[in-house]
Amino acid sequence: MLGAQKAKVLYDFDGEVENGELVIRENQILTIIRQDVGDGWWEAETATKQRGLIPEAYVQIVDSWNVPEDAPPPPPPPLGDSSMSQSEAVDLPAPPSFDSQSAVSSSGMHHQDNEDDWDDEDDWDDNQSTPDYPEGDPNAYFDEQESPQDPAVNGSGNYGLAPPNRQYKQRNSDASTKATGTVKKNFASRFSIFAKSGGEAYLLGIAAKKGMSPNVEVRIVEGNDGPMWEDPGRAVTIEIKNPKKETKMKGIKSFIAYQITPSDSGIQVSRRYKHFDWLYERLAEKFTFVCIPPLPDKQVTGRYEEAFIEKRMEQLQKWMNRMGAHPVTGQADVFRHFLSCTDDKKWKQGKRKAEKDEHVGAAFLQVIQAPEKPLDIGVVEKHHDNFSKFQKSMDQNIAISVQTSHEFSKKHNGPFKREFQKVGQSFTLLAQSFDLDTRPRSSDDDRPPQVSSKLTEAMKHTGQTYDHIGQLFADQPKYDGYILEDFLREYAGLMSTFPDMINFHKHTISTVKECQKQREEQKMDYEEADTVKKRADVVSYAMMAEINHFHTERVTDFKEVMQQYLGEQIKFYQAITSKLQETLQKYEEI
Amino acid sequence: MLGAQKAKVLYDFDGEVENGELVIRENQILTIIRQDVGDGWWEAETATKQRGLIPEAYVQIVDSWNVPEDAPPPPPPPLGDSSMSQSEAVDLPAPPSFDSQSAVSSSGMHHQDNEDDWDDEDDWDDNQSTPDYPEGDPNAYFDEQESPQDPAVNGSGNYGLAPPNRQYKQRNSDASTKATGTVKKNFASRFSIFAKSGGEAYLLGIAAKKGMSPNVEVRIVEGNDGPMWEDPGRAVTIEIKNPKKETKMKGIKSFIAYQITPSDSGIQVSRRYKHFDWLYERLAEKFTFVCIPPLPDKQVTGRYEEAFIEKRMEQLQKWMNRMGAHPVTGQADVFRHFLSCTDDKKWKQGKRKAEKDEHVGAAFLQVIQAPEKPLDIGVVEKHHDNFSKFQKSMDQNIAISVQTSHEFSKKHNGPFKREFQKVGQSFTLLAQSFDLDTRPRSSDDDRPPQVSSKLTEAMKHTGQTYDHIGQLFADQPKYDGYILEDFLREYAGLMSTFPDMINFHKHTISTVKECQKQREEQKMDYEEADTVKKRADVVSYAMMAEINHFHTERVTDFKEVMQQYLGEQIKFYQAITSKLQETLQKYEEI
Repeated sequence: MLGAQKAKVLYDFDGEVENGELVIRENQILTIIRQDVGDGWWEAETATKQRGLIPEAYVQIVDSWNVPEDAPPPPPPPLGDSSMSQSEAVDLPAPPSFDSQSAVSSSGMHHQDNEDDWDDEDDWDDNQSTPDYPEGDPNAYFDEQESPQDPAVNGSGNYGLAPPNRQYKQRNSDASTKATGTVKKNFASRFSIFAKSGGEAYLLGIAAKKGMSPNVEVRIVEGNDGPMWEDPGRAVTIEIKNPKKETKMKGIKSFIAYQITPSDSGIQVSRRYKHFDWLYERLAEKFTFVCIPPLPDKQVTGRYEEAFIEKRMEQLQKWMNRMGAHPVTGQADVFRHFLSCTDDKKWKQGKRKAEKDEHVGAAFLQVIQAPEKPLDIGVVEKHHDNFSKFQKSMDQNIAISVQTSHEFSKKHNGPFKREFQKVGQSFTLLAQSFDLDTRPRSSDDDRPPQVSSKLTEAMKHTGQTYDHIGQLFADQPKYDGYILEDFLREYAGLMSTFPDMINFHKHTISTVKECQKQREEQKMDYEEADTVKKRADVVSYAMMAEINHFHTERVTDFKEVMQQYLGEQIKFYQAITSKLQETLQKYEEI
Repeated sequence: MLGAQKAKVLYDFDGEVENGELVIRENQILTIIRQDVGDGWWEAETATKQRGLIPEAYVQIVDSWNVPEDAPPPPPPPLGDSSMSQSEAVDLPAPPSFDSQSAVSSSGMHHQDNEDDWDDEDDWDDNQSTPDYPEGDPNAYFDEQESPQDPAVNGSGNYGLAPPNRQYKQRNSDASTKATGTVKKNFASRFSIFAKSGGEAYLLGIAAKKGMSPNVEVRIVEGNDGPMWEDPGRAVTIEIKNPKKETKMKGIKSFIAYQITPSDSGIQVSRRYKHFDWLYERLAEKFTFVCIPPLPDKQVTGRYEEAFIEKRMEQLQKWMNRMGAHPVTGQADVFRHFLSCTDDKKWKQGKRKAEKDEHVGAAFLQVIQAPEKPLDIGVVEKHHDNFSKFQKSMDQNIAISVQTSHEFSKKHNGPFKREFQKVGQSFTLLAQSFDLDTRPRSSDDDRPPQVSSKLTEAMKHTGQTYDHIGQLFADQPKYDGYILEDFLREYAGLMSTFPDMINFHKHTISTVKECQKQREEQKMDYEEADTVKKRADVVSYAMMAEINHFHTERVTDFKEVMQQYLGEQIKFYQAITSKLQETLQKYEEI
């Protein structure tokens, strides 16, 4: 606690007031109440006595009310070892790393000389606070997903894209003993991406190394629907199979190793969930303008349960194929390394290289070659707004559709099945009554006339048919509902990756406009403003390329899943029809 | 109150103990507690101090403990004007008329010289105690029917076949001021039919008029499945149409007149519900061994509502056709009179004649010509027991099926519709999001690429399809569920007519066995016992003929209704399939 220390706001921050955050504006002076909130948050008070949380990197401690004209360099980010090259950004304040890399660091994954850490923790250890599902309940997985708090449904994902950790803040709001580092899961705040990844540094040309142009890694070209990522035509499809339970430390620890075969080499490699997680981190860190959807959820209970492993494997395969099909991620060295490396020593080398990659976050923009043609800022803005609206709408409606699809499947399993089987039961009961039509000719001859027996048989058959239809209803989601639901959840994950991009791009547009204004006011020379605009165009081109890629994939994906869904639905109703026709035939025979 | 008066039990009576009745046995001596219970019931106490209700006609007041060897003539039935000719049964005690004829009498219908009574009361007046349905609720009719108290569902019918009026007994159990006659709805007790209709008198040959053999009205012949009613081949089908609202008394009273056309004459006659009710009474009174199913329910609210009238008309037509198709009722003078008489004067003559018919109830057995071949009492008994089991089972399972069918239709109208429309809504929402995929080339060119538009259209179509399927579910019961339910209700009514027949026949079997025993003990001569057996055979032949007729109809009816039901179900699922196929096509076109 530093008591009544004052701080000047360096950047606007639109805090979520309902979550105890403050809305602060550049040059505003705050009183800092607490600096030990943790995870890069401070508690502050405004001149109007409003108290709340602020990101510490957004403010600068000042000695007096005489605020300096030029802001001094900011304090280093609280968690120190963000993957970003801080040395290149010394001139600009960097908001705290609210991303998951830091969390991973704290569990040792980034300590490159501690390779053993790969195996020191099992991949569900991070998740011990996840509530247990009832053992053996096949719906547990879905039931958890449908809860309104489910990040996938809310579209915020589970990989460093969630809003600030409110639970954490609450626990610490009374200066509790818990400090930074006790909460394993770190977070990125929706506001931080632009500054965090060095967006402004890039735009203003501060981040680029002097005198050396980095190699182009990715090209953006003009396509029919506008800018698109150049496809190097090396798309790879990935098959994952044979999950094996392996043990180490004399069987005390165990894990699942998945066997992965890429279509190009055809050579199988073995990877654990932990490796996928590492790959995810690398891709998410590097490719600011590519959707890197979250991995399938971790799960605590029943982690070796066959169905769970099969399901995870299937989801990992989907995720890998999505990454493999993307012109940017599919060609990324780290992705290729993950897919192809079989040698342990080379694996470690490649791993270190990936972790040392300088062109991550905003610096990735330096290795993009975009079309030379300058973009109309009006068109770019409209494009931005349109996609922003689309994203919000999709995010919401996908969540509704996930819920609806889930409920519909549950109805198939429950009430639909029950109602049809009740009908079946009532016909069966009638058949049982009919069976009592025995009209004796003598005391030894106790039987129903033939025509009555035929009706009884037909009625029994009807009972069985409706019972069977009930079972068909219960089984059906396996063929359509669950698949659609999984697909929609995957898209919920995809949608959750966009707010950061949108935010980055929004700041880019603001910066361009600010520079234009300054140039108009003669505060910035034409060449400088033009350079900023050129760099901003790379951002916009990247954004547009990714949007185009997303939409192309969306059309293909939805077409495919809906064809499959409707095809299975048609088969289902045809099966019912044919069951009924078979039954009707029994009556024709009476 | 007659205090401690004693009575001797004349006939066994298996009272329903749970309803406050006593189980009494012949020759048992009871203490009569109350004689003013009403409707033919007395309260009595056994030697073991059990108290309960007994039918007064089943006992005889005795002066002392010296019970006479031969029972004196019984008191006249409490309601006096039963349609049975009491003069023929003076030598035998007759239990009270627990049937609805008496009730009708009290409202004047049997007062043959008061023809105006036809119109003095509207046909729903008798039903004023029926709870009102919410006005305009189209389900009210069904909702009432599904209540567990619903007589149709319970299989006891609503025409004098219900168990003793418990409500009435309760109201009078504290010697209330209400007395016999204040309750309009009378009842027949399941025990009374044998004695009431003069079964014993017939069997013992007391009822037949001396020296005069009545004309044969009905013949029983041997068929493939045993005895059957001879079919005179004059089956008639009946069409009822053009219900007209007519008024009288300057419009104060109004009623519906149905136009009825029988297939034989082709001449249209006009009848009111009240006339149908009268016809029902005549048939039920005369044909002890023919199923006379209850008429469609009366209804208070919305009695002129078009849908209600249409529905009643349809049900009346079904009822008339069932009666017309029966070899016994279809040929009955009263039925033919009802169908053909257009002249007002002749109508009254025919009406009087029908009401004066002597061969009603057990006396109807006198006009049956059955096969001469004596029946094996063992076979008859087995037949009896089999059918008795069948009847109980059907009664119960039809009630369950009515309930299930009703619930299933409700599910179609409610949750099924809702669930499918929710799914439709979620697809529509996704399409709305897709519609926001507008990627501007310039600030004036704001449109989605063609392929994306096609997906959006396909998704919209999918939304409409599932919405439509929801509507198909809601509409479907009109084509199958409601029809099946009505049919099952009709059968519930049919089943409710059997307990009286079964009871009558059971007493017949007992009487035969008793006579056999007396003959073996030399208490009865061979000829007399043989005559009783011959008469009993007529009863058994009639019973078997009616059972055969019922089963034949049952097979035909269920075959027909199930064919219709399944046919409509098939059409329904085919319609869904074709809707889905149409939608799938939209995706193929992307």
